[in-house]
Amino acid sequence: MSDLPSRVRILEEGPREGFQIEKGAIPTRRKIELIDSLSETGVEQIQITSFVSPKAVPNMADAVEVAKGFSRKPGVRYTALWLNDKGLERAIATERLDIRGSLSLTASETFLKRNQNRTHDENVAAVKSMLGTYKYHKVPVNRASIMAAFGCNFEGDVSVTKVLDLVQQLLDLALEGGVTLELISLADTMAWATPASIHKVVGAVRNRYPGLELSLHLHDTRGMGIANAFAGLQMGVKTFDAAVAGLGGCPFASHSGASGNVCTEDLVFMCDEMSIETGINLEKMIESALLAEEIVGHPLPGSVMKGGSLGRLRQKVKARLAQ
Amino acid sequence: MSDLPSRVRILEEGPREGFQIEKGAIPTRRKIELIDSLSETGVEQIQITSFVSPKAVPNMADAVEVAKGFSRKPGVRYTALWLNDKGLERAIATERLDIRGSLSLTASETFLKRNQNRTHDENVAAVKSMLGTYKYHKVPVNRASIMAAFGCNFEGDVSVTKVLDLVQQLLDLALEGGVTLELISLADTMAWATPASIHKVVGAVRNRYPGLELSLHLHDTRGMGIANAFAGLQMGVKTFDAAVAGLGGCPFASHSGASGNVCTEDLVFMCDEMSIETGINLEKMIESALLAEEIVGHPLPGSVMKGGSLGRLRQKVKARLAQ
Repeated sequence: MSDLPSRVRILEEGPREGFQIEKGAIPTRRKIELIDSLSETGVEQIQITSFVSPKAVPNMADAVEVAKGFSRKPGVRYTALWLNDKGLERAIATERLDIRGSLSLTASETFLKRNQNRTHDENVAAVKSMLGTYKYHKVPVNRASIMAAFGCNFEGDVSVTKVLDLVQQLLDLALEGGVTLELISLADTMAWATPASIHKVVGAVRNRYPGLELSLHLHDTRGMGIANAFAGLQMGVKTFDAAVAGLGGCPFASHSGASGNVCTEDLVFMCDEMSIETGINLEKMIESALLAEEIVGHPLPGSVMKGGSLGRLRQKVKARLAQ
Repeated sequence: MSDLPSRVRILEEGPREGFQIEKGAIPTRRKIELIDSLSETGVEQIQITSFVSPKAVPNMADAVEVAKGFSRKPGVRYTALWLNDKGLERAIATERLDIRGSLSLTASETFLKRNQNRTHDENVAAVKSMLGTYKYHKVPVNRASIMAAFGCNFEGDVSVTKVLDLVQQLLDLALEGGVTLELISLADTMAWATPASIHKVVGAVRNRYPGLELSLHLHDTRGMGIANAFAGLQMGVKTFDAAVAGLGGCPFASHSGASGNVCTEDLVFMCDEMSIETGINLEKMIESALLAEEIVGHPLPGSVMKGGSLGRLRQKVKARLAQ
């Protein structure tokens, strides 16, 4: 087990991943309440909202209000998502966010076409244009991501060669744009990964680019999220996106595409129990998870929020033995 | 990944694990319907019911009717659970089951006391007595299990030494009783295991008893079930208990103790995708899972039954490409 990292970074995406897919409108003040609760957990980064078209994602129409309303806690980075210049400019204008640029390519052109209505070449052109915008606004860029890196509902399995090609394209685009990528996120956007494919893909990228830090963005649609995170840990991955309570997926709806990030507190639990530091207080993250469930008004997929931590049980055992 | 087995045995415990904890009464004919559905999945063993006191477990009062009612499919073993001579004799009397004996010790005496109202010594005496009963009825005995092998809600963490001691005690008891144990099941009865502790405990037992086959009985209360199964596969474990749809646990109740076996079809999905043969047809197991959910009348924890298999998606991709 000596290959497991001693410390990992778990980046919270619940407020953005979760609320965007909810059917009913979530009141702005409740979104802010969840962000403020997450700020108390020790998590180092919270993606609070998405500056996208309110027509496409009605639940994100209040992005500016959310950004203006939460309480900044020192030491926490507050980020957001945008897909174009207009979104970025709205995010910057709030003057309340930690604006960092990220480049994104997609391993499935069919998915890209459906998701962003672009061909791969159009997407590369958009990345180049975005790099110009980041430069103009003096936004630091050090991260990129590859969507659908493990498979696609519309194109099927994605080859390791394809992922390696995209990593190289991202590095080339960054070089051309005068930025240095420190981290590439491999996203299992449609939940095709298994521990074996995590080993295979992460291993191949790591072999070719030993200096590049990798992160994993895992979805749990087929129940593999935590196992895939463990496989990532075994490959030395030190950064994970996650969503409190498993927000983003409803286990009671049929899933047509992406759904449900790996659950933050379940991942923190696993790390805690395996002596991997996360900096996150599990009990506080469970409180945030219960709050998230109350806010959306239906059961969320997280397990530890229902099963409880072992820390609490160990305390009870200790107390009983001390009697 | 070369240490993963090429074939595993997944033993179905859903009808027993699942129905015993349901609050409402499940009609006998529906229990039989699920067993008959499971018989069509290719699974090699189904634990169909529990011959225990109807006072303690009201939902198992119809054990004899269930045993008499299902349709035996050639090639499938139909087993049941009992905790004493009376239960065993009721099971034998049905003349419809594959009666095999199993010895059981528990790593936590506090749990044993609460669960079976016995001290460890009383439990050892009960095992000896049961061995006599098995001999009398000519019941083959080749399996044993250790409950609470990874931790206990009432005693806390369980040491590896404790587990090793219990393995030795079981082997001694078997030797004394004139039977040969081929397999010892390590049960994570209260969901304390993580992939790290699976590696540690399975590794220690394997090191000391290299000829002994191990199986894992995993609960998913804290969302670690599939990750723990993967860790087991990495340690060469080839036999797993599982429950269709994750029966046995309700994600919407607070868990005070044991709950929810690892989900059969999620485990089959992971194995399929990692080229590990199970002999089980995933699509048919998903059908059984959906039937189980309909029978209990509330959502069950399984993921692949909601997210769908990748096999189906690959077929669609192929069909589209062929157009």
